[in-house]
Amino acid sequence: MVNTLFLPELREMLTEQNRSELEEFCIALNPGRTAEFMEGLEDTQIWRVLQYATPERRAEIFGYFPEDRQLTMLQLETPAEVAELVEEIPPDDRVDLIQELSVDRVDQILPLLPVEDRRDIQRLQSYSDETAGALMTTEVAKLAENLTAPAALEEIGRQASELETIYYLYVVDENEILRGIVSTRQLVSSLRRPDQTLGDMMETDMIVAHVDDDQETVAQNVEKYNLLAIPVVDSSRRLIGIITHDDVIDVVREELAEDAQRIAAVEPLEEDYLRIGLLTLSWKRGIWLTILFFAALLTAFALRHYETELENYAWLVWFIPLIISAGGNSGSQSATLVITAMTSGEVEFRDWPRVMLRELAVSLMLGSFLALIGLSVAFFIAPAPRDALVIPLTLMCVIVAGCLCGGALPILFKRIGLDPAMMSNPFVAGIIDILGIVIYINIARWLLV
Amino acid sequence: MVNTLFLPELREMLTEQNRSELEEFCIALNPGRTAEFMEGLEDTQIWRVLQYATPERRAEIFGYFPEDRQLTMLQLETPAEVAELVEEIPPDDRVDLIQELSVDRVDQILPLLPVEDRRDIQRLQSYSDETAGALMTTEVAKLAENLTAPAALEEIGRQASELETIYYLYVVDENEILRGIVSTRQLVSSLRRPDQTLGDMMETDMIVAHVDDDQETVAQNVEKYNLLAIPVVDSSRRLIGIITHDDVIDVVREELAEDAQRIAAVEPLEEDYLRIGLLTLSWKRGIWLTILFFAALLTAFALRHYETELENYAWLVWFIPLIISAGGNSGSQSATLVITAMTSGEVEFRDWPRVMLRELAVSLMLGSFLALIGLSVAFFIAPAPRDALVIPLTLMCVIVAGCLCGGALPILFKRIGLDPAMMSNPFVAGIIDILGIVIYINIARWLLV
Repeated sequence: MVNTLFLPELREMLTEQNRSELEEFCIALNPGRTAEFMEGLEDTQIWRVLQYATPERRAEIFGYFPEDRQLTMLQLETPAEVAELVEEIPPDDRVDLIQELSVDRVDQILPLLPVEDRRDIQRLQSYSDETAGALMTTEVAKLAENLTAPAALEEIGRQASELETIYYLYVVDENEILRGIVSTRQLVSSLRRPDQTLGDMMETDMIVAHVDDDQETVAQNVEKYNLLAIPVVDSSRRLIGIITHDDVIDVVREELAEDAQRIAAVEPLEEDYLRIGLLTLSWKRGIWLTILFFAALLTAFALRHYETELENYAWLVWFIPLIISAGGNSGSQSATLVITAMTSGEVEFRDWPRVMLRELAVSLMLGSFLALIGLSVAFFIAPAPRDALVIPLTLMCVIVAGCLCGGALPILFKRIGLDPAMMSNPFVAGIIDILGIVIYINIARWLLV
Repeated sequence: MVNTLFLPELREMLTEQNRSELEEFCIALNPGRTAEFMEGLEDTQIWRVLQYATPERRAEIFGYFPEDRQLTMLQLETPAEVAELVEEIPPDDRVDLIQELSVDRVDQILPLLPVEDRRDIQRLQSYSDETAGALMTTEVAKLAENLTAPAALEEIGRQASELETIYYLYVVDENEILRGIVSTRQLVSSLRRPDQTLGDMMETDMIVAHVDDDQETVAQNVEKYNLLAIPVVDSSRRLIGIITHDDVIDVVREELAEDAQRIAAVEPLEEDYLRIGLLTLSWKRGIWLTILFFAALLTAFALRHYETELENYAWLVWFIPLIISAGGNSGSQSATLVITAMTSGEVEFRDWPRVMLRELAVSLMLGSFLALIGLSVAFFIAPAPRDALVIPLTLMCVIVAGCLCGGALPILFKRIGLDPAMMSNPFVAGIIDILGIVIYINIARWLLV
């Protein structure tokens, strides 16, 4: 939804080059809202408005535009202006943007940046994707142990505009080894005891992330310990950055969306759906679709195996899709429930007997109900009323098998170290398709002598 | 995973009633880790250890235990001790716990709490589930406009231990109407200008939540504007609480898990999988399973309609499950990708032509590949090589139909105001099951004259 409230005024201010009003527009509102009001403008118009903001404010407002618009602007505007902006973007976001720009463009901009920013960018680029290193920002409040509370406050006051968060202060020694953490809350509470140093009040039992840690582990720790930020250290415990809570929400969102995609048998996309290459997209879907296809091929051979039965009782054929889908649907319900319960930590391996009992109970209820409906339909279709019993009996067995299988496989896969979200549903579907047919024909053989 | 490292020592300290060591244990570590080390103890043992911590620390450590253990302790320990703990638990968590306790228990504890805590609990209980009011905490730093930065710092230093967050200060007038927000960052940066008041530095363009707002909307705003906390106001803009970033992560997690469940055709569970009643669970699964069942029943009638064709070409029957599942799987991939892309804001209604084009392109690639595999198998099974062509042609058509349908339905459902996650997959499955059979038999009729 584009907010069009201020668009005519903004266009007019730009035409008139009305400096005072444009400066006022850039400062008066929350930066996120300022960006929202500009969303209806052309990229070049946005860029011109932004030039009326202070460099710091400009970067802040810029950060609220969607990534593709940010990239167009960085790609097309004059290198000097772009470099001036890039300098102010927080280090972690900056690296993500630079990685998307064309090589030519990066070559134009990098030389215009201060040398320490250039080094910072190179270092951050060197960490592999989805690790703590790739997620962190390098702007962190590092302070010495012997500072008193008022001195520390004054110091972070001086640095505040350059720091992503000032809510934890990190106490380091002369080699930048992390020694302890003081929260601003503690600092503020200690103001009345001005003799206390950071060393006296710091927490030394710290939750830290290692630079190579997987981003999911990092997010879990931030959530578990309710942190606003987590420090990132290298192998010698040198403090090299922090990861803040907003980046953690992004990770949580990303990981859960990946889970949902895996449950539907798609390899998670690393890019936006609308931007990912069609070949990559086909590949990521094709792998699992092919595996599922081979599983389904087995049903063709199974049915061929039962050729005689199917010719003698042609009406059995009509119910094949119904039986397979009832088993598949109930199995995928069970698998999804158990997968989401494991992701949120509600279900662990030791709970497997309870999960099985619950699935058994639920499947008996669901099975009875659907079997009743199935019976009443089969009653009209089957040649003899007694023959109709094949359908409800099969439905009952298939639904119980589907639920038990759907409940057990995710737990099993997790136990042997595989991703339950990725493996479960394809396997459940494959097993139930073939099992459904075998159960069906054998019940029919037994009843329809 | 239970951490057993300290268990023997802890048990020994308890037997010896070793006050100094137990006090040390409660204070030395991060409270989250302290809780972790105790997880292997009995509930009563944990409770006894906790009695050695200060009331504040006790509540902090207590907050890190799983909810069911917290509830057992609150339910079983002596009312006086329980009340002392409840008093220190943050208001929002406290209300959640009290709602789970037995009525008798609540009646024992409430009278032991200070009157203002009792009122606070009653007020928080009055907000409906999943709204801002139910999510917020009432411990918030309210300050007057005329305070200077140093005076404000001193004031929050005094209140710090009682506040859930001190990182935003809320400026209110004498009627508690919210006037502006000052971040601790701004406060700290302004320390060198001691004449400035909160009124001078406060941000007046605020992002606020209304007490009746849906929690999902609130979470989206916190994410969008990268907030650490969002103030909650009532209809007259009176500040009544705040929602902090950690509660927002929980909401994000909950909403995404609900999406995943809806995609698999389960009505989202409101309780843990292992705790929800079996009847409720069956009901939540049964609704959609029944709808899907009726859709699948249509396939039985469709197949009966094509009785003659199926009797003349019995081998066609063998491929029915394969064709239906290829269409269903590719359709549910498309639906899930589009649903997750819409949830994260990547895809909106106006993108529908691009989505359709992409689905067409991808389905042609996937269809060709699977058709090739299908052809090579059908070649050996079909009575004449020419007959085998039915299979690849059908697969191609069904996969294209599945992808287009899976891509279009979520967008359509969202447009007409229905939840795309809930509606899409059942519909996609139903449509593709029946469409697959119609396509299949008609291609067969046309080719196998």
